[in-house]
Amino acid sequence: MVSLRGVSVIGAGMSRFAKQPELSIIDLAQPPILDALEDAGVTPGQVQAAYCGSVFGGSGLGQKVLKGIGISGIPILNLENACSSGSSAFREAWLAVASGIHDVTLAFGAEKLTALGGGAYPLGEGDIEADQGILMPAVYAMRARRHMTEYGTTIEQLAKIAVKNHSNSVHNAQAQYQREYTLEEVLNSRMVADPLTLLHCCPTGDGAAAVVLAATEFADRFHGKPVKVRASVLQSGLFKNDFRDMTKSDLSYRAAAAVYEMAGLGPEDIDVAEVHDAFTIGELMYYEALGFCAPGEGGRLIDEGATEITGRIPVNPSGGLLSKGHPVGATGVAQIVEITGQLRGTCGRRQVAGARIGMTHCTGGGVAGFDHIACTIHVFEQ
Amino acid sequence: MVSLRGVSVIGAGMSRFAKQPELSIIDLAQPPILDALEDAGVTPGQVQAAYCGSVFGGSGLGQKVLKGIGISGIPILNLENACSSGSSAFREAWLAVASGIHDVTLAFGAEKLTALGGGAYPLGEGDIEADQGILMPAVYAMRARRHMTEYGTTIEQLAKIAVKNHSNSVHNAQAQYQREYTLEEVLNSRMVADPLTLLHCCPTGDGAAAVVLAATEFADRFHGKPVKVRASVLQSGLFKNDFRDMTKSDLSYRAAAAVYEMAGLGPEDIDVAEVHDAFTIGELMYYEALGFCAPGEGGRLIDEGATEITGRIPVNPSGGLLSKGHPVGATGVAQIVEITGQLRGTCGRRQVAGARIGMTHCTGGGVAGFDHIACTIHVFEQ
Repeated sequence: MVSLRGVSVIGAGMSRFAKQPELSIIDLAQPPILDALEDAGVTPGQVQAAYCGSVFGGSGLGQKVLKGIGISGIPILNLENACSSGSSAFREAWLAVASGIHDVTLAFGAEKLTALGGGAYPLGEGDIEADQGILMPAVYAMRARRHMTEYGTTIEQLAKIAVKNHSNSVHNAQAQYQREYTLEEVLNSRMVADPLTLLHCCPTGDGAAAVVLAATEFADRFHGKPVKVRASVLQSGLFKNDFRDMTKSDLSYRAAAAVYEMAGLGPEDIDVAEVHDAFTIGELMYYEALGFCAPGEGGRLIDEGATEITGRIPVNPSGGLLSKGHPVGATGVAQIVEITGQLRGTCGRRQVAGARIGMTHCTGGGVAGFDHIACTIHVFEQ
Repeated sequence: MVSLRGVSVIGAGMSRFAKQPELSIIDLAQPPILDALEDAGVTPGQVQAAYCGSVFGGSGLGQKVLKGIGISGIPILNLENACSSGSSAFREAWLAVASGIHDVTLAFGAEKLTALGGGAYPLGEGDIEADQGILMPAVYAMRARRHMTEYGTTIEQLAKIAVKNHSNSVHNAQAQYQREYTLEEVLNSRMVADPLTLLHCCPTGDGAAAVVLAATEFADRFHGKPVKVRASVLQSGLFKNDFRDMTKSDLSYRAAAAVYEMAGLGPEDIDVAEVHDAFTIGELMYYEALGFCAPGEGGRLIDEGATEITGRIPVNPSGGLLSKGHPVGATGVAQIVEITGQLRGTCGRRQVAGARIGMTHCTGGGVAGFDHIACTIHVFEQ
């Protein structure tokens, strides 16, 4: 019944992720799109449809961004799925090509969090959990405590994730942080939500990222080295196990099962992954959900160095959300930019040697207020 | 290359459109979804993906709405395209079925404009046109003036559109206005933007609408009488002619040409249409863009009564945006609810006799601030 075409990423670009209050969201979003088009060898007039992901970008953001760079007169859609907004936009751009209605599409994401005044991620009015203080850092802090209790995971193991990701992004010129942090610096930074100190949490910042997609059968017509999309999964909804076991993200477990089935692969086949590490405990929980180790074994995986760039399953060579930064709508697309680079072998000092199969995992919404908005997982191959 | 499946609407529901500040947007959105599911004979567990259109509904609206009615664990996406948000959501729901990745999908739209405090439709900060007062009513007022100058269109002809649409929605229990207005009442209502008085403008209000889609090949398994989607077009972008001829919406002209080509039909084949009449001049301009008459002949079409329910090409039997109301994100889906009813023959006293082919036209963004966000046109058949 389903007869989908192969789709490839043929161009990629991203802005610096940083606090850039002097730039409008449009200023932020346009250069990466132009970079992605140039990388692909695609002219603005060849883009047949565009998909924009943003949470706080306002009405008609995609149209406003594209107008000024000569992309007009095509279908443009704006998508919002919290942290998964950009990766949800990518999914719709993928489906448009896979279904055959378009041959070349553009997916991009943009966010200007400094425009929100520097406070916490805004939540809806009347949100019971938020009113009680169950904000994202609190949710992940509880998950961390529970994981420690349940499996003996230590705060040092969690801190090592921050150390690893900061170490990786020293080599990423687009990253918000570009210096190494020691274990002590992570452990001794300001407390945010016990046991998570500041350096266990991703920063807020501004940024944008873009990729160009084309039908694999046409991908060679353009000059950007194509990277194939092997599987695309979007899942939403409540944890099935709700609060009964908060160390397990049911949403990510479900999405992982679906994406491995679609890709015809298992976790042992993944050479490199960008994983949603808004908090250190997040990356650790998602190791388990993605099958990189058994449930409860995340701390050991870190201790073994398995997720370092030189390890068995390198995670977040870009620096991840923790260090590269997390301008919400841009994040999912930026992960794809990184994996595209990794599979092309162009990532320089943060390159994972011989990477052939890559994964991006982006999940929007924890518990409070967001109702597990969406988990998107994409698998790519050379 | 493109091999899409047939898609049908198998269930439809909508809330009352009205100022309903006592209801949350979630309270507004859930009943129409349940109605649409019941109409279709589809259980919540049978919905395989859901697409939510809203402009001001906030992050993760679709997930929040669906959580409470037992729809979870499926892909959910939130779409924003200004006035075309709901119809853009419908388009993605259609593509998901047409491409074969899902068999049964849900599209809905919801908006609570009273939550915005009753002021004008908010525009982005730093929008040059908006800062100069070129808001929607002003844009359409200039279009009206230009149409009058260019073609001799009269304010009475425009007012007749409001009279017609208010007359139609007397028979629509969901409409925001449910009484007749005379030509004099329209002409003598409070001036908003010369020459457009209040009754030339759609009201603000709250509401929601939902439809269930299924692959046509499976549509008979459910008990809702199916209505086929014959064509779906989404276009975005600037007027090609920009301000050179503001009586012509290039976006709607382009989308109309594309949808007629996709449907293999012409304007003479359309039995009934729901058209984006946020202002009376809008409906008149779009008569011309949709080919219901030649450019400049919109006024004559009205004088002939051709767009009345008993006319040659009935437009807005529901009452349209002018009278049924315009809770932005809900509007495009509500148009589809109406056309579904018209093609099923269930519209009672506002039924267009013998309607077999129907059209919905929803366009988001005029000139100022919105950059011609999107025009969506869908064609349906019995």
